[in-house]
Amino acid sequence: MKIGVKILPREEVLDSSGRTVTKTLQSNSFKVSDCRVGKYLEIEVDAKNEAEAKEQVQKMAEFVLYNPLTENYQLEVL
Amino acid sequence: MKIGVKILPREEVLDSSGRTVTKTLQSNSFKVSDCRVGKYLEIEVDAKNEAEAKEQVQKMAEFVLYNPLTENYQLEVL
Repeated sequence: MKIGVKILPREEVLDSSGRTVTKTLQSNSFKVSDCRVGKYLEIEVDAKNEAEAKEQVQKMAEFVLYNPLTENYQLEVL
Repeated sequence: MKIGVKILPREEVLDSSGRTVTKTLQSNSFKVSDCRVGKYLEIEVDAKNEAEAKEQVQKMAEFVLYNPLTENYQLEVL
């Protein structure tokens, strides 16, 4: 089962990559008001059902994939 | 309107971060068979409707956000 993990910097954290992308796009006439830049992972897990797969990936995320001080994450079944 | 952009290395490209994450998880008893690591962006665009927003972000992606030689991307309306 494949699970997607979206990781973004928290709202209160300065996202310098995001600001750079926003400014680059704006200075090239794109109508962008904000952009946040983070990580995306697709993980193939061995699980019986969606719930078990999500639970496993949640454990992985909390174990090593994201930094709770500076980031938030979201899971999705693919 | 907010659009999410998922960027992952192409299948035929060696994804060294993904391999490292896979091995780290496996050596900590997680049942993972594969993991790909990429980027995730959330872009707030000024557009009248979903179709226009997606079209704009597609132009941005092709202009500067991803590298077509090594990466694939996917858009989603949030």
